[in-house]
Amino acid sequence: MSNRGLLDLSTFFAPASVALVGATDDVGRFGGKCLQRIVGFGHRGSIYPINPRLDVVQGLTCYPSLNALPETPDHVGIVVPADKVLGILKECVARGVRFATVFTGGFAEAGTDAGRAMQAEIAALTRASGLRVMGPNCNGVINFVDGFAMTTTGTIAGPRKPAGNIGIASQSGGVGQVTVMWRAQEAGLGISYEVSCGNSVDLDIIDFASFMVDDKVTDVVLMVAEHIPDGDRFAALARRAAEREKPLVILKLGRTEAGGRAAASHTGAVTGSDDVHDAAFRQFGVIRVEDCNELYEMASLLRTRRWPRGLRTAATTISGGNSVLLVDLGAGHGLTWPDYTDATKTQLKEVLPKLGSTANPTDVTNAAVGKPDIFRRCIETIAADDNVDVVVPIFTMAAKSDLDQAVAVAQSADKPVALLWTGGCADPAVTPASVTAQGVAVFRNTLACVKAIRAAANYGAFLESRRAEQKHGSSIARPQDIPAHGPFEAIAGARKPLTERASKAILAAYGLPVTQESLAATRDDAIRIAREFARPVALKIESPDIPHKTEADAIRLSVVGDEAVGNAFDAVMEAVRRYKPHAQIGGVLVQEMTPPGQEMMLGIVADPVFGPVIVAGLGGIHVEVLRDVSYRIAPIGHDDAGAMLQELRAFPLLTGVRGRPPCDIEALCDAIVRLSWLAYDGRGVIAELDINPIIVGPQGQGACVADALIVPAQGG
Amino acid sequence: MSNRGLLDLSTFFAPASVALVGATDDVGRFGGKCLQRIVGFGHRGSIYPINPRLDVVQGLTCYPSLNALPETPDHVGIVVPADKVLGILKECVARGVRFATVFTGGFAEAGTDAGRAMQAEIAALTRASGLRVMGPNCNGVINFVDGFAMTTTGTIAGPRKPAGNIGIASQSGGVGQVTVMWRAQEAGLGISYEVSCGNSVDLDIIDFASFMVDDKVTDVVLMVAEHIPDGDRFAALARRAAEREKPLVILKLGRTEAGGRAAASHTGAVTGSDDVHDAAFRQFGVIRVEDCNELYEMASLLRTRRWPRGLRTAATTISGGNSVLLVDLGAGHGLTWPDYTDATKTQLKEVLPKLGSTANPTDVTNAAVGKPDIFRRCIETIAADDNVDVVVPIFTMAAKSDLDQAVAVAQSADKPVALLWTGGCADPAVTPASVTAQGVAVFRNTLACVKAIRAAANYGAFLESRRAEQKHGSSIARPQDIPAHGPFEAIAGARKPLTERASKAILAAYGLPVTQESLAATRDDAIRIAREFARPVALKIESPDIPHKTEADAIRLSVVGDEAVGNAFDAVMEAVRRYKPHAQIGGVLVQEMTPPGQEMMLGIVADPVFGPVIVAGLGGIHVEVLRDVSYRIAPIGHDDAGAMLQELRAFPLLTGVRGRPPCDIEALCDAIVRLSWLAYDGRGVIAELDINPIIVGPQGQGACVADALIVPAQGG
Repeated sequence: MSNRGLLDLSTFFAPASVALVGATDDVGRFGGKCLQRIVGFGHRGSIYPINPRLDVVQGLTCYPSLNALPETPDHVGIVVPADKVLGILKECVARGVRFATVFTGGFAEAGTDAGRAMQAEIAALTRASGLRVMGPNCNGVINFVDGFAMTTTGTIAGPRKPAGNIGIASQSGGVGQVTVMWRAQEAGLGISYEVSCGNSVDLDIIDFASFMVDDKVTDVVLMVAEHIPDGDRFAALARRAAEREKPLVILKLGRTEAGGRAAASHTGAVTGSDDVHDAAFRQFGVIRVEDCNELYEMASLLRTRRWPRGLRTAATTISGGNSVLLVDLGAGHGLTWPDYTDATKTQLKEVLPKLGSTANPTDVTNAAVGKPDIFRRCIETIAADDNVDVVVPIFTMAAKSDLDQAVAVAQSADKPVALLWTGGCADPAVTPASVTAQGVAVFRNTLACVKAIRAAANYGAFLESRRAEQKHGSSIARPQDIPAHGPFEAIAGARKPLTERASKAILAAYGLPVTQESLAATRDDAIRIAREFARPVALKIESPDIPHKTEADAIRLSVVGDEAVGNAFDAVMEAVRRYKPHAQIGGVLVQEMTPPGQEMMLGIVADPVFGPVIVAGLGGIHVEVLRDVSYRIAPIGHDDAGAMLQELRAFPLLTGVRGRPPCDIEALCDAIVRLSWLAYDGRGVIAELDINPIIVGPQGQGACVADALIVPAQGG
Repeated sequence: MSNRGLLDLSTFFAPASVALVGATDDVGRFGGKCLQRIVGFGHRGSIYPINPRLDVVQGLTCYPSLNALPETPDHVGIVVPADKVLGILKECVARGVRFATVFTGGFAEAGTDAGRAMQAEIAALTRASGLRVMGPNCNGVINFVDGFAMTTTGTIAGPRKPAGNIGIASQSGGVGQVTVMWRAQEAGLGISYEVSCGNSVDLDIIDFASFMVDDKVTDVVLMVAEHIPDGDRFAALARRAAEREKPLVILKLGRTEAGGRAAASHTGAVTGSDDVHDAAFRQFGVIRVEDCNELYEMASLLRTRRWPRGLRTAATTISGGNSVLLVDLGAGHGLTWPDYTDATKTQLKEVLPKLGSTANPTDVTNAAVGKPDIFRRCIETIAADDNVDVVVPIFTMAAKSDLDQAVAVAQSADKPVALLWTGGCADPAVTPASVTAQGVAVFRNTLACVKAIRAAANYGAFLESRRAEQKHGSSIARPQDIPAHGPFEAIAGARKPLTERASKAILAAYGLPVTQESLAATRDDAIRIAREFARPVALKIESPDIPHKTEADAIRLSVVGDEAVGNAFDAVMEAVRRYKPHAQIGGVLVQEMTPPGQEMMLGIVADPVFGPVIVAGLGGIHVEVLRDVSYRIAPIGHDDAGAMLQELRAFPLLTGVRGRPPCDIEALCDAIVRLSWLAYDGRGVIAELDINPIIVGPQGQGACVADALIVPAQGG
């Protein structure tokens, strides 16, 4: 989105007047089908077919051009050959049109130079004018709230389905309109808006999702994105959604695509673009799913806008097997199954048939089936229990009267109630879709139910911590002792990775603890420096041409005594002569050996979408093999840093295992926070940064960066 | 199953005559409903209601007792109060009945002593007689092939659904009959048999699955198991299924249950019961799924009995977005997307409309929709390509004629063709279920499609390797140089874990390489032994009371020189005196330091279901923290050992990373194979065994067990 003032898409979605350039009578053709849908969907404003060869199209007066129209339409659809599109858009600009949707394909998506060039021309036109364009190569817009659709999809043929509170923004038409929207409607869910925005030359998926977040009717927004057009705008969208407490659920394609990331550092090598997306979504409170059905399954619960206060789940059942499966899959996703309070148990005893159990899950028994009120009172009693955050009534083959009772509680309870209904009903009019259409979350499959509860609870916790931050101030605060914008001259001028020494100087400026060290030009220098440290030393080559010293065998550790130090100096120099005879040599770095501790790695990667990313993981060679790493978009606060470490499988190594003392996690978190500010300040300048290892001592004894490498941004 | 000759369940599933003890007129009661279902499902043989209080039940002549019947029924259903069940079963025995099904609950599942006692009496009766019993607390049997059902489930009300080739064996009725069977039928799949076998006092899920595997009509067996009753019988079932090339698909509940495993060793601590089930299922070629819908989704493809020869997948589409998602999720599950051969491309150019692509996935374009023959010829051409193992035609909103073409190819092609149909059809008679009912695999969701293809390909590979083994002989061969069974005297007599030295002696007997070492009683002893090694040594306490020496600080590594060795001896003894003053001390073990290498761990755990299990993982303290381990049921062959290592995330550490030399993987595999025979021979004797670490040297330089611990079986 170019920055042309506040974007108001209301007349895009609900135009008073709409024109379709390329409208025809033949409903087998795109322009005919599209006009048929505009009319059939019940648009109540003016509809202007435009086609210079016809006077009447599908019974409507047809105009030869935009210019010939009696008024300026709010929204113009364009279905002309690709080489004619730019001309029509110029007519739109001349006529003062605000919104155009270009359905025509053959632009950038065709992969041809000509296609890309035509798309660039449209981009330039929209930037230079007030005209805002969806597409090209898109399949339009559907607005169930106001009854406007401009698209060809067969999914809206027939009577218009009722509007609901779920919005859908997709780049693909087949996915957005069929695999998500139509399927959601078949499942009984109501949709507010759907857009399939195609190549996104101007208006993109973030613009449309933002409209839906601001919209009064929409409570949940589902997104299907082949790529996130802009990390900062996406973050702003997520913030706005969080303010309004409207969950964003996203299916991000391209999970497994080969990353185009350069990998001059180990951090770069282990950081996949998809990992960063994952981290960003979590950080922004955006719910990510894997497949299209999960989008609307999640929405089924989220649209009720009741967030579980926790993961304490209760279930009622008449089928032991299905409740075992629910408990089982639930436990795998963090759900817990609390005992009820004594008061609840007493009340349940009154309600339940004599063989019923007051355990959780609660066996209502077959004796309850078809009886008035037993299900309602039982679920109500459980939902009122302070130990319970969410209730799942399980049904298999269900009696309508029992379902009705569960629906009544689900509609009235303060807490979320999610029905798990695996079977059918003797009354053919009562289906999962008909129950869902009453505003209740109905799940057909146990795993989907469990995942939705987990997502809703996570979202509730996210909002809770956001509220706490607003009350007590952000946990993300710039440390006071770091430079306003830190000494990046050495990086900005560099074409090669910085040496360890230069890299550490920058880390030190940001207050990260680094080893003491000096550069030795000669064997005698090295011996003199080592004597001053009066403890074991490491010797490492200092050369901008050798970023990975271990591979060059140009490193010696734990060296003690004059002769050993001198020999190590010679050995390092000799190894470099063999490894890279013409390497530029700055000398040999003699540095104090850090006392033993847990080796961790920290890093920075500049992500093309989300910008500076912080990486933490197990250090040494393990990081690349085990890929046990966690990510955050910088900057972050101390709590986030702690959470990053807790995400690592290796976290117990920091808390102490098998009699080893706990490590100084505080010091490591402080280093992560400082590094995150360095990443933030250094965006555009730092491409990648490795700290491997940072050696974390026992509690209270700090951490120390033992090796580091900064890779400058190309042209940075 | 008790061992009473070959079990033939044909008259259980298809009795000529059936009796129901406890039949009543009231179809709101269990005995009434059950009789109603027997009649309604269309049983063509004799039906004998038994109830001493009635002469006619539901229009059928009613008898006062089994004894009063004109013939001995093949199968007797029992719906009387729990305390009356045993008496009726005795009548069955007296009358010479072969099969009884006890529906009544209130036995072991009630958790009461009385319930357990009554169930034990039934167990004793079945063992002592020829009577075979399903239940108690079960919901009976459904046979769509011969038209016999004895159950209450509403899922079979109405006209009988056509039989198919999918069998279902479940312990739970709600899950088996509704969440799996009815849902599968709603999806258009045909079922052969379903049993819900409840408490399994005698006949169990393995017996019923075995019947289905042997049955001519059934091609796929779906199992839902709360527990596997017997590992050996399960293995035999799996072998028989593999012989007949009939896939078993299993949903095993209890994934997350707290394991009851004792954990005297680290191997025990990291080995969950569910991990062992996972490993056993994979080893036996059994397909495991997570939720009920996955059972029948898998079956939709597997029932076609066309196994992909590999994972090379092709797709046709008119929706770019859906094919991107398929490629994306497919890649995440190992599917690859090969280019077509030139011949295929040439043929496709002739078939496709002009904007169609000959890339994979293949864009058939909107222009193909509704045209005769384009889809058929396109899919046929791709299916014939040697580069392709499986074809996925993708549909959104689909024309009937296009679907028909895809169905025709799917029915006739040699290779598996799986339809991914995310939308609907304008013709309301054409639904995913109606297409599925034509014998074609239809998937509604992309991830389900991908998982089924992966499972089918894995199954094909499993059968292939099985055939290769049958041709070339089993890869599991007992090494010739190991003892026939043996030396387990030291274990069988022990009540405490064996010391390192005793443990290593047993490993050495099985040909595993262990460190050289001797026991020192005194400081001088230690010095003398260390001198003989003429290399650095380790000193470790030898005490049956200190299985974990590191925690006791009773270990010193890399000690060099007489004085250092002597001091290390004293330090170890002193540490033990502090740690456990009354520990029984065998001395201090002085052992050669193994040259550096990659530290790995190996282990044995005795699983209560599957018996001896082999464990391999990254060594040192990492094993417990990172839990990067793999499992096999012992014994295994050399290839399996290699596969175990390749499953580890840490595997690259063995192949060499960052300039480190590759390790002697052959030697490690040899050690694993030998250990697996030790595990097999030691079943019932060894509870757990730790080797941590085994140090694996560079290629050709072998591996060496540096520490070991054997935990005897209780009472072993």
